[in-house]
Amino acid sequence: MPYFDTASSAPLHPVARQALLAALDEGWADPSRLHREGRRARMLLDAARETAAEAVGCRPDELAFTTSGTRALHTGIAGALAGRRRLGRHLVVSAVEHSAVLHAAEAHEADGGTVTRVAVDRTGRVAEGGYAEALVEGTALACLQSANHEVGTEQPVAEVAEACAAAGVPLLVDAAQSLGRAAVPGGWSLLAGSAHKWGGPGGVGLLAVRKGVRFAAPRPADERESGRAPGFENIPAIVAAAASLRAVRTEAAAEDVRLRALVDRIRARVPELVPDTEVVGDPVRRLPQLVTFSCLYADGEALLHALDLAGFSVSSGSSCTSSTLTPSHVLKAMGVLSEGNVRVSLPAGTEAEEVDRFLSVLPEAVRSVRAQLGAGGRETGTAAETSENGGGAAGEAGNGAGLTVDALGKRCPLPVIELSKVISDVPVGGVVTVLADDEAALLDIPAWCGMRDHEYLGARGTAYRIRRRH
Amino acid sequence: MPYFDTASSAPLHPVARQALLAALDEGWADPSRLHREGRRARMLLDAARETAAEAVGCRPDELAFTTSGTRALHTGIAGALAGRRRLGRHLVVSAVEHSAVLHAAEAHEADGGTVTRVAVDRTGRVAEGGYAEALVEGTALACLQSANHEVGTEQPVAEVAEACAAAGVPLLVDAAQSLGRAAVPGGWSLLAGSAHKWGGPGGVGLLAVRKGVRFAAPRPADERESGRAPGFENIPAIVAAAASLRAVRTEAAAEDVRLRALVDRIRARVPELVPDTEVVGDPVRRLPQLVTFSCLYADGEALLHALDLAGFSVSSGSSCTSSTLTPSHVLKAMGVLSEGNVRVSLPAGTEAEEVDRFLSVLPEAVRSVRAQLGAGGRETGTAAETSENGGGAAGEAGNGAGLTVDALGKRCPLPVIELSKVISDVPVGGVVTVLADDEAALLDIPAWCGMRDHEYLGARGTAYRIRRRH
Repeated sequence: MPYFDTASSAPLHPVARQALLAALDEGWADPSRLHREGRRARMLLDAARETAAEAVGCRPDELAFTTSGTRALHTGIAGALAGRRRLGRHLVVSAVEHSAVLHAAEAHEADGGTVTRVAVDRTGRVAEGGYAEALVEGTALACLQSANHEVGTEQPVAEVAEACAAAGVPLLVDAAQSLGRAAVPGGWSLLAGSAHKWGGPGGVGLLAVRKGVRFAAPRPADERESGRAPGFENIPAIVAAAASLRAVRTEAAAEDVRLRALVDRIRARVPELVPDTEVVGDPVRRLPQLVTFSCLYADGEALLHALDLAGFSVSSGSSCTSSTLTPSHVLKAMGVLSEGNVRVSLPAGTEAEEVDRFLSVLPEAVRSVRAQLGAGGRETGTAAETSENGGGAAGEAGNGAGLTVDALGKRCPLPVIELSKVISDVPVGGVVTVLADDEAALLDIPAWCGMRDHEYLGARGTAYRIRRRH
Repeated sequence: MPYFDTASSAPLHPVARQALLAALDEGWADPSRLHREGRRARMLLDAARETAAEAVGCRPDELAFTTSGTRALHTGIAGALAGRRRLGRHLVVSAVEHSAVLHAAEAHEADGGTVTRVAVDRTGRVAEGGYAEALVEGTALACLQSANHEVGTEQPVAEVAEACAAAGVPLLVDAAQSLGRAAVPGGWSLLAGSAHKWGGPGGVGLLAVRKGVRFAAPRPADERESGRAPGFENIPAIVAAAASLRAVRTEAAAEDVRLRALVDRIRARVPELVPDTEVVGDPVRRLPQLVTFSCLYADGEALLHALDLAGFSVSSGSSCTSSTLTPSHVLKAMGVLSEGNVRVSLPAGTEAEEVDRFLSVLPEAVRSVRAQLGAGGRETGTAAETSENGGGAAGEAGNGAGLTVDALGKRCPLPVIELSKVISDVPVGGVVTVLADDEAALLDIPAWCGMRDHEYLGARGTAYRIRRRH
């Protein structure tokens, strides 16, 4: 049963398991105590710190173990902002950072600070010069991920680090998707990572803060981990995290060549096998193991379930799979289709046969999900031509006003499905208006226009206007 | 090699180990994902929450798993203060709470709030009526530990809960030392615990917040654990924590009777075996497994090392064992001797023979440590009478001014040792002044006076005045 969601969490690496078991008997005591059990725990903790620091490329005393990648980001951002508070309260992040960074940015705004969210292009890469422009006077910190967790696109960390250095602003790199997998470009002032992303256990994050970076540990004070991670250390998990980080690094180079080829195969075959599909993210400058695509006229959650039934575990950035019913902020920032979204992230050791099997079940999974929504059996052309279901499409032909489709109250992908059903009723050059109040429509209707080569005229409130081109 | 420091951290309970191993293979995925691995992780997390909630005595949806007891306290306090901010910004804590509570109180003050620290008596118990008096208009929250972590004294939680209910103020109970061991009195609004104190793994705390208690989760926002514990859940550790909590609860009643008797033996025998020793804490209303005593003329760190060499792991609240070189705030609040302080906390399963062996090695350990400091071979009476080492005691006989001992720059217990050496040079009824700038002297010189039955006349700056009584 292949698990293709390693970007959410990787299965425990055998070395992590082994190290964890070994450390359970030795690492349970309080490392701040002077007795032999405490000293033993301290030795394990110190050794794990050296191992992790070497992997990260920093000094052991620059590295703190936090309880998660999220905590590393929260603490790193809060600490750097507080440390440079007198110099200014401006924060720069990209629009496609992990939610932990964006939530920290919102907290900073709520606290009176200012934030620039640097835009990305359609591949998810931050715009050339975007950071340089955002690093205004009074910028306390800039944050950039090494690579995007949803679409795999690598960010220009080295260039942004240069811009930050020129402006005298520290750069925090969220390396959660890269640590243990690829070298993180130097030039960072702070770096965060998360062990369960590389096959370590849950409950361990890394926060490295270069010597000389102004940093004020957030309150309440605590003596553990240089004041950067309050609470009793989970040393067995920390030991397992460090040991597995070293292990995956030695395996990474060979494994990543293999996975990159498998992902290339998915990127090439999906659009051939499944009509009306868009593969997103940078095809070359990307994580080796991750690919994301979206399928018109498909419901992301139903698609996950269909693939789950077929034996494949993947994730999705579609709005229907989110607790807030909004599409992934990453897809939104990229301006790409969000409906029927599937992220595939291959664990180390994935076989070519597994990928081929995935490619063989995907077309039927998408077809069945589209059929459930009445998006028709024919998946090319305008689905409406073969649909027997008129749905809520209230046709109102006319020359000036044009046709109006009322999809208010309907969740994506329904508004797009109904649009696709009526487009052939519109004369070429004519305009159709879609009324839709699902937030995802703002993304998916323009994306549909791009993919079907019609003209998107824009939205006013909940009214989207589209001109038929062909 | 007996480990007598279970109050710092307990060795992993066999049930915790078993549950952890079982959950490693099932609980590594992201419980917020919809695929089978995610659903399996979610089921484990839900089951652990039900188990823990039953043990705590709350509903599962009132309980969040944090990454430590410290985090549970920090978040519980910050969340309750923020939730009731409009009603007032006063916080009430006892003077002997865990440092996590006191640090949260300091953070609250730094943020503009006010704090009352309720005093304790010489046993470490909060004063009768102390909370009722402190619950002034505008009190947002009161915090009280179930029992003290350094001296074992149980706090009057039920009485304080009544006072809080009468004042309409929520009570946060820090149950870290009691969970799994003894029933926590009801009446709390928030409750915090820490798994590694009951034999669970590190990296897991509990925070229960009763429905209806105003609570605003601290920023940055995060969707996990009802917004009360950001970051990826360490589910194997959580499963192990819940399973071991249930296990230790079933063993607690019988075990605690046994441990209570062993501690009674230590409490009775230590003063008989080691002269000039004070056993502190409430002799009856106390944790079953914990006892603390202090030894005049002894250095706490040296004593820990001597006991460690003799095979016993204990901890100490003496200033020399703290990174800040200040005595334990608990001993300070109680006004008891801090020098030569030893805390013994017995793990479940401790045998009577181990306790007897501890009692047999203790006198020699204390004697050797006292001898190293020149506190003399005779440990009763005034040590000075047999000492050959005049030390820094600068005798300056006189009728009006009296004798002055210059112990400036000397760390405790040296000032007290020098005082004991010169007291016989002072005529009965005469006064000796000790100059000492070690903070612990403020505690230890009055304690010495009480134990040796001399009159403590008070301190002015670094000058302590003592009148010889006999």
